[in-house]
Amino acid sequence: MPQGGEKDEVFCMKELEERILKDGGVKAGGVLKVDSFLNHQLDVGLYRKMAQEWKRLFEDCNINKILTIEASGIGLACVAGEVFGDIPVVFAKKAQSINIDGEVYSTKIESFTHKKVYDVILSRKYLTSEDHVLIIDDFLANGCALNGLIDLVSEAGATLEGIGIAIEKGFQKGGKMIRDRGIRLESLAIIDKMDDETGAITFR
Amino acid sequence: MPQGGEKDEVFCMKELEERILKDGGVKAGGVLKVDSFLNHQLDVGLYRKMAQEWKRLFEDCNINKILTIEASGIGLACVAGEVFGDIPVVFAKKAQSINIDGEVYSTKIESFTHKKVYDVILSRKYLTSEDHVLIIDDFLANGCALNGLIDLVSEAGATLEGIGIAIEKGFQKGGKMIRDRGIRLESLAIIDKMDDETGAITFR
Repeated sequence: MPQGGEKDEVFCMKELEERILKDGGVKAGGVLKVDSFLNHQLDVGLYRKMAQEWKRLFEDCNINKILTIEASGIGLACVAGEVFGDIPVVFAKKAQSINIDGEVYSTKIESFTHKKVYDVILSRKYLTSEDHVLIIDDFLANGCALNGLIDLVSEAGATLEGIGIAIEKGFQKGGKMIRDRGIRLESLAIIDKMDDETGAITFR
Repeated sequence: MPQGGEKDEVFCMKELEERILKDGGVKAGGVLKVDSFLNHQLDVGLYRKMAQEWKRLFEDCNINKILTIEASGIGLACVAGEVFGDIPVVFAKKAQSINIDGEVYSTKIESFTHKKVYDVILSRKYLTSEDHVLIIDDFLANGCALNGLIDLVSEAGATLEGIGIAIEKGFQKGGKMIRDRGIRLESLAIIDKMDDETGAITFR
C-alpha cells in the first residue's frame, strides 16, 4: 500500500552531514560556516561524491547542461559536469562584464549575505530551448539565487530537469517555495535547526 | 651539446591552441573571447586535459594545495585539484564577505576588465607556511591578479611551486614580469599577436 500514511522519504547524504557536524560551525544570525570544505577551501573529493549522488538521484533525467551562478557554485558545477559525462557547464555572472557581447538573458538577485541586489546575466548562446538543465548550487536559504537561475532557464525556453543543492537551510523559505512550484529539488543535507549558542545542528 | 645556441623550448598545448582558433574570437581593444569553452560556458573535458598537462609539467614539485581567485579560475582549479590527487583548492575572494570571520590575508587587485580595484581576501586558516602552492588561473595579461595571489602566498609564508595559466597574452607585460622574478610559470597557450580586424591569432 504505497499511497497514504507513509512518511515522505527525505534523502540525505550521511557523509556530508557528518562533515558538517565535524567541520562546520554555527555563527550568530543563522550563518552556517562550512568554509573549510565547501565554499572557500574546497574538498574536491567530497565534491565528486556529492556529484555522484546527484547523478544517481537524477538518473532518469536526460540532463545535457549544468547551470550555476558565480562564485562558489562553479567548482561544484564543474565536478558535476564531469560526473554527468563531461557535459557543458555554464555560470550566470553577477553584473555586466564587457567581455560578454551580444544578447544576454538577465535577472536580478538579492543577496542577503552581501546586502545588495545583483544584475545577473547569461549569454543567450549558452542556454537554448534544446537544453535539459540541472541547476547546481552550494546553498539554498531564502531561494533568491535559485529563483533568478530558474528565471534564466524560463527565459531561454529550456527544460528545467531539477536542482541539486549541497546544503539547504530547511528553516528558511526557499526549499518549500521551490518544491511547491513542482520543481524537483535534491538537497544533500537539509538543516532544520541551528543553535548559535550551543552550536547544535539538527538535520531533517 | 645541450647548452648554448638551442632555442628556448616553449611548451604549448596543441588542443587548446586549436580550440582557441576554432571557437575563440578577437574583439576590439585586445579582448580575446573564449567564453564558449573557458570562462562562461565551461568545457570540463578540456579542463581535465589542461589539468593533466599541469600535472605533467609540475611533476617534480610536491604540490599540496591549489590557489585561485574567483570567479572563472575556480572551475579550472577544482578540476586541477582532482587531477593532482584530490588536494585542497582554496580561492581568494573579492571584497569582504560576512561569512569569513577571523583573520584574513588581504591584498588589492586592479581589474582592467571591470575598471576597478578589488580588495581580495583569503582566510589564514587555509594557507600556511606548510603549504606548497600551485596557483591556477584562466588568463594572464598584465599580471595584476597573479601578483595579488603571489602576495597572499608570501604573506602566508607558503612555498610557491609555480603558476599554471590557460591562456597568456604574451604581448602584455604580465608573463615576462613573473618569469623575471624567477617564478615558474606554465601557460598552456601563449598568444603573441591578435588582430581585431582580421581576427588572426598568432601563438608563440
